[in-house]
Amino acid sequence: MEALEAIKSVKSVSKYKPDPVPEQKVQAVMNAARFANSADNLQPWKFIVVSDEDTKRKLAGACTNAKHMADAPLVVVACARLDEAVAMIGGYMNSYPLDLGIALANVTVAATSEGLGTSWIFAFNEEKVKSFLKIPADARVVGLTPLGIPAAYAPPAGRKHISEILSYNTYE
Amino acid sequence: MEALEAIKSVKSVSKYKPDPVPEQKVQAVMNAARFANSADNLQPWKFIVVSDEDTKRKLAGACTNAKHMADAPLVVVACARLDEAVAMIGGYMNSYPLDLGIALANVTVAATSEGLGTSWIFAFNEEKVKSFLKIPADARVVGLTPLGIPAAYAPPAGRKHISEILSYNTYE
Repeated sequence: MEALEAIKSVKSVSKYKPDPVPEQKVQAVMNAARFANSADNLQPWKFIVVSDEDTKRKLAGACTNAKHMADAPLVVVACARLDEAVAMIGGYMNSYPLDLGIALANVTVAATSEGLGTSWIFAFNEEKVKSFLKIPADARVVGLTPLGIPAAYAPPAGRKHISEILSYNTYE
Repeated sequence: MEALEAIKSVKSVSKYKPDPVPEQKVQAVMNAARFANSADNLQPWKFIVVSDEDTKRKLAGACTNAKHMADAPLVVVACARLDEAVAMIGGYMNSYPLDLGIALANVTVAATSEGLGTSWIFAFNEEKVKSFLKIPADARVVGLTPLGIPAAYAPPAGRKHISEILSYNTYE
């Protein structure tokens, strides 16, 4: 799929087919994360692909509004490694949430391009997710998504008009 | 350009041609930001496209290692609107850096797909950038990039092996 079309075609999936995702596709999608920009090129991301049924159910229970999560063949958990992030960017924040957002976007667009769907969840109990996946203390969970072949989509989420998010030469 | 190819082809540009970027391409690239996922779909991003020569030079001076910035026909400044972000995701952080990372990645991939180049800078003096662009107190600057037709690329930045960033069912 063309890049601009894939970016525009990203939709939140509300239901996934139970069909397994070929490992080759999983690799292609997750490989897209490798090419993301990051502060000082430190690439502080780590993705966990969960196929274990029991673990998927536990993860769904640790998220808000994630009943459909365990029905997907896979769940992807995006983590940040604090030991590999830039402590301060812009003079005020750690780089890892921004770095992770860039990598996560690549995964999302690549999945769409490959005929797969995602529906990122940012409301979760981090302590539980870390415990289920044995995530160490110096890593953080930033988001989770089911990954699979879409069976149904959530109603399209509205987007702001371009004039609301773009200006020229000054902020207003 | 195909989506996976565009994602893999993103390179940091070290020199830009002085040629202007057609407004249609600017719109196509910035429009890609609109389709990014964000927590609760709040879309807390605002992008400023700077073409004014004096402002570009000032911005370059507020960044680290950005001598080439003012040579590009445009500079894009990615800002976050704190009034439109989710105050708490994962129980521990504000959503805006993650939201902005997702939008910024779409812009980067779309630019590459359209034959344009970027080179994001995350080391900058936020106070100065805000002052030059009249950015209000409740917005933050998260990154800046020149935008233009590439004339030369920085040496390729190495990437981690897929096995370093991907695991199955548990973190290790």
